[in-house]
Amino acid sequence: MKQPQVIETVSDLRAVVRDWRSQGLSVAMVPTMGALHDGHVSLMRIALERADRCVVSIFVNPTQFAPTEDLDKYPRQLAADLERLAHAGVQLAFTPTAAEMYPHGFAAKIAIGGPSAGLETDFRPTFFDGVATVVAKLFLQALPDCAIFGEKDYQQLCVVKKLCRDLDIPVEVIGAPTVRDAQGLAMSSRNAYLSPAELAVGRQLNTILRHAASALQLGADPGETLETARLHILEAGFGRVDYVEARESDTLAPWRRDRAGRILAAAWLGTTRLIDNIEVTGI
Amino acid sequence: MKQPQVIETVSDLRAVVRDWRSQGLSVAMVPTMGALHDGHVSLMRIALERADRCVVSIFVNPTQFAPTEDLDKYPRQLAADLERLAHAGVQLAFTPTAAEMYPHGFAAKIAIGGPSAGLETDFRPTFFDGVATVVAKLFLQALPDCAIFGEKDYQQLCVVKKLCRDLDIPVEVIGAPTVRDAQGLAMSSRNAYLSPAELAVGRQLNTILRHAASALQLGADPGETLETARLHILEAGFGRVDYVEARESDTLAPWRRDRAGRILAAAWLGTTRLIDNIEVTGI
Repeated sequence: MKQPQVIETVSDLRAVVRDWRSQGLSVAMVPTMGALHDGHVSLMRIALERADRCVVSIFVNPTQFAPTEDLDKYPRQLAADLERLAHAGVQLAFTPTAAEMYPHGFAAKIAIGGPSAGLETDFRPTFFDGVATVVAKLFLQALPDCAIFGEKDYQQLCVVKKLCRDLDIPVEVIGAPTVRDAQGLAMSSRNAYLSPAELAVGRQLNTILRHAASALQLGADPGETLETARLHILEAGFGRVDYVEARESDTLAPWRRDRAGRILAAAWLGTTRLIDNIEVTGI
Repeated sequence: MKQPQVIETVSDLRAVVRDWRSQGLSVAMVPTMGALHDGHVSLMRIALERADRCVVSIFVNPTQFAPTEDLDKYPRQLAADLERLAHAGVQLAFTPTAAEMYPHGFAAKIAIGGPSAGLETDFRPTFFDGVATVVAKLFLQALPDCAIFGEKDYQQLCVVKKLCRDLDIPVEVIGAPTVRDAQGLAMSSRNAYLSPAELAVGRQLNTILRHAASALQLGADPGETLETARLHILEAGFGRVDYVEARESDTLAPWRRDRAGRILAAAWLGTTRLIDNIEVTGI
């Protein structure tokens, strides 16, 4: 099992990619914050089906955490992460420091508008500015042919696609299906925070969203259906529901029954916030 | 004299650049808003000294004009512009429509911070967001090796350099000396708005700034020197002075006597706003 090459600087990253390009090899990127799980591994597999080489970035990006959020306790486990990359056949790990990504005097910010409005932004107002800016930087550092993002963070996927479209970043952004455990819980690095009792509650989120999606597809009233879902999430044992909403699946504009849609939800279990989403087929 | 190829779409632009790259040719870009004058031509000459091929974009970017500004009356003269490109030996003119640059639903915005603070921004608050966003798009559409910007728009030059540095856009940004007429007036497309009497007044701006720079270099007090310059600009016949300031030449932070600096000024002649700037050597 071949260990991935590990590099920490943009100039080294560019040198490796330049070398690959000179051999005519195509390149896929999987940006991550580490604490890798089977969901991430599925992205790497797709990357290596799409391209000759895969670079996985591991960077816990401070600019997408609010001061009240879990930046300090966010799980960091580089050795275990590198083992997963080796298993997946990934050739390159890019593990920049915060100083490499944001040198003294750094001041740029990208705001995306469009799909970044509402949902997560109502609760994490600067989150997608941080995501868009760091993803733009990673893409422009590596200039891969394509990049793979999980549908688990569905709004993020839409924001990254819009980022590339609006700013003409020449990277194809590919969404990958959410990986779930046997009981339907979406894989997330933050699941590591959950107690066994919380895990059992968390596993009901996807079931509740699936029921709501079926109801909408069968013609139920959206307002009532989403309110019922919200109550079910609370009854299941979640402490607070940030949102349960139906949106158009590409623009994230409010859902209309004739369009492909997505139900997106965020809810709290103790001090841990879980998000999930599910497709609603247009009628 | 070979006419430049003229293209209007991003996909055509990428196809031409891809073809050049496949031949091992290097590429320089000169972004402009058209109404080309000898200042622009000097940028093209530098571009063709630096690279095998030069693409000049001609796009009057609506997002960098405020509603009160001169977007509608900004001079447009494509045929004459293409003549100048042909004379300069430029191979490619990129003349996108507003719809090509900003398709329906476009919503991204890049804010640069740092050198964009103050000066122009005090009077044109959204100007550099518009500049940074359109320049990022042009750079990512063409991916040239380098791009040439005039020192005439000195704060813009600093903003574009910072844009590339902070977002890791792999384009070398090169500043080029301001081209002036025989009496020292900086070339500008907006000079076309000036009456003969206003032209005579406008030509004094550079002289006044040169005197101020000499005074600072000889040790004069910065506050007094700049206030004197402001009064001289008004006495020359300008109607209003937006600013006359001394800044550090790279960061545009307030100037300190031991650093290389720049005096930057903006003043009005009737309804036309002129800007100029001059180097101050550090002592």
